[in-house]
Amino acid sequence: MEVKASSGAYPVLIGPGLLNRGELWRPHLAGRQVLVVTNETVAPLYLESVREQLADLETDVLILPDGEQYKTLESAGQIWDKLVDRRFERDCTLLALGGGVIGDLTGFAAACYQRGVGFLPMPTTLLAQTDASVGGKTAVNHPRGKNLIGAFHQPRCVVTDTDTLVSLPERELRAGLAEVIKYGLIRDEAFFAWLESGLDRILELEAPTLSTAIERSCRHKAEVVAQDEREQGVRALLNFGHTFAHAIETATGYSEWLHGEAVGLGMRLAGRLSAQTGTLASAQLKRLEELLDKAGLPDALPPGLDADTCLKLMGGDKKVRNGMLRLVLLRDIGEAWITSDVDLKAVRDVLAGAQCS
Amino acid sequence: MEVKASSGAYPVLIGPGLLNRGELWRPHLAGRQVLVVTNETVAPLYLESVREQLADLETDVLILPDGEQYKTLESAGQIWDKLVDRRFERDCTLLALGGGVIGDLTGFAAACYQRGVGFLPMPTTLLAQTDASVGGKTAVNHPRGKNLIGAFHQPRCVVTDTDTLVSLPERELRAGLAEVIKYGLIRDEAFFAWLESGLDRILELEAPTLSTAIERSCRHKAEVVAQDEREQGVRALLNFGHTFAHAIETATGYSEWLHGEAVGLGMRLAGRLSAQTGTLASAQLKRLEELLDKAGLPDALPPGLDADTCLKLMGGDKKVRNGMLRLVLLRDIGEAWITSDVDLKAVRDVLAGAQCS
Repeated sequence: MEVKASSGAYPVLIGPGLLNRGELWRPHLAGRQVLVVTNETVAPLYLESVREQLADLETDVLILPDGEQYKTLESAGQIWDKLVDRRFERDCTLLALGGGVIGDLTGFAAACYQRGVGFLPMPTTLLAQTDASVGGKTAVNHPRGKNLIGAFHQPRCVVTDTDTLVSLPERELRAGLAEVIKYGLIRDEAFFAWLESGLDRILELEAPTLSTAIERSCRHKAEVVAQDEREQGVRALLNFGHTFAHAIETATGYSEWLHGEAVGLGMRLAGRLSAQTGTLASAQLKRLEELLDKAGLPDALPPGLDADTCLKLMGGDKKVRNGMLRLVLLRDIGEAWITSDVDLKAVRDVLAGAQCS
Repeated sequence: MEVKASSGAYPVLIGPGLLNRGELWRPHLAGRQVLVVTNETVAPLYLESVREQLADLETDVLILPDGEQYKTLESAGQIWDKLVDRRFERDCTLLALGGGVIGDLTGFAAACYQRGVGFLPMPTTLLAQTDASVGGKTAVNHPRGKNLIGAFHQPRCVVTDTDTLVSLPERELRAGLAEVIKYGLIRDEAFFAWLESGLDRILELEAPTLSTAIERSCRHKAEVVAQDEREQGVRALLNFGHTFAHAIETATGYSEWLHGEAVGLGMRLAGRLSAQTGTLASAQLKRLEELLDKAGLPDALPPGLDADTCLKLMGGDKKVRNGMLRLVLLRDIGEAWITSDVDLKAVRDVLAGAQCS
């Protein structure tokens, strides 16, 4: 499939065995210098396959530790040091082999090295395959806030090898489903219904079902991004559940929960808030809760995290404008809307209802 | 004057007393949160004037040490820490009060905070007023290379108060003239001739002459940038003299020479190379050397720096593509061109001729 961004179009390749099919993605490298950035979990599984495809080029590899806690300016600094050491030039390409952390971090490093060099992500988690690889958002975390330092930088090509999901822990697969379900919730009732009946087949990694789910999610994201590359309007709908999620992740230091798990709970809370404020029918809220249950996504805040701490952290998120809380809510399954004047008491009630007892 | 960039147009205000005329530039702030970034030299002179104009807004100030050696990722980190501490939101504005270092660094911090917030430079050196404020290039230095980490980010408005030049040391004024002379050399013979007769009046800070020189330089830069925002083609002409200059600055650790002094020598060397390779007439080279002499710009490498070290560092500059040296040369006064296959021996000869004996 093809993604159109205002700065040009780029292909998203989706299918089994793509890491070994260099002839399909090598034409999208910017020049002969390639730095592969990956982590200690992914490297033993897939690095050799990728390196074989690059054998005749000037390549180097940087292997970082695994985890959201390494999505930092310091890690970006390590990438830049390596690029300067090796005298990588303006037409080099950074190839990100790994999940969302590796992709966001490497994309940010590519955006800022010499004011922008080539970026080619090869996402190896369901979350990164459906979400992080389309849209051009790159970033690192600040100790007190997620994704606070970043840039918009479009990839030259996205290589989504569905075979890599075989090695993904089931917990991460379930977390990845959160963003897939999100597209059903915010803009595609038919896709939501398809997921209600087909979720088991995805969890069993049935190949065609998996490919369909990834492609449909990417198409949704690409459509929204093409309409609104710089996140001024409709793109904000993609943040459904994310204001809650970022607060939870900030409170727990990004290490306790997976991003998709936090988003899963965030969507549940945003759904409950929508029902409570009267915009979502209770039957539809029930469908939402049941599908999230089936995906095994959390239905309560982490132990020890209370409603007030969460509420305070939500105010520090970038969805705040002039001190008013801006949230994405649901009118129906498949129909989201943005409101800028959310009653903070209602938000607190919903959070309090999800506290661990 | 107005600068058109592909991402929109913004005004450049040029004239005396503008720092105190908030009514002219305040409409260009993005929202009510403003962080003023300045340095220890400029703050005692102008910070109070600027703060008075912002009295009713939510403002904060970060005062950094003065010098190119502070144009680092660590300084950008200090800006980001302050923004996060103060919970500055996506509609905040970073106001850069100072020379090119403060402008480049603050612009980079603005480009990456929450993936892009408002940026309003108030340049206080001739160099920054004529060059650094137009074009959207922002960056910090890497220990082994100038401007290696950066982004393209357009300002909301540029406020050039010519009164600030009164406090500028004469050495910096002369260094700033290098970029002014550059526009004459690369694209405007008439402007070069005007400078040959009017340079003394600029050095005496005669106001109308100064304003004309700044405006004409900004217009030239704006024209080139409007044609080519992302530096794919003609914009590279603006790098006339800069490949030599960056090598000198890297060798001396950015602290011995001012940027404009390095550019002044770089233009001289590029001019001599042009004459040596037969594209520039010797009479025209003589005019170039005489005007640079009049501006008091250097005609030899710093003591202890030899031709081979320089040549090696030029290969590490980002004007290299596929291992070939790319340089801007002159065909005539007012006419520059880019060549990608420069004879390295000729470059070495020119450098050797400028070694301190």
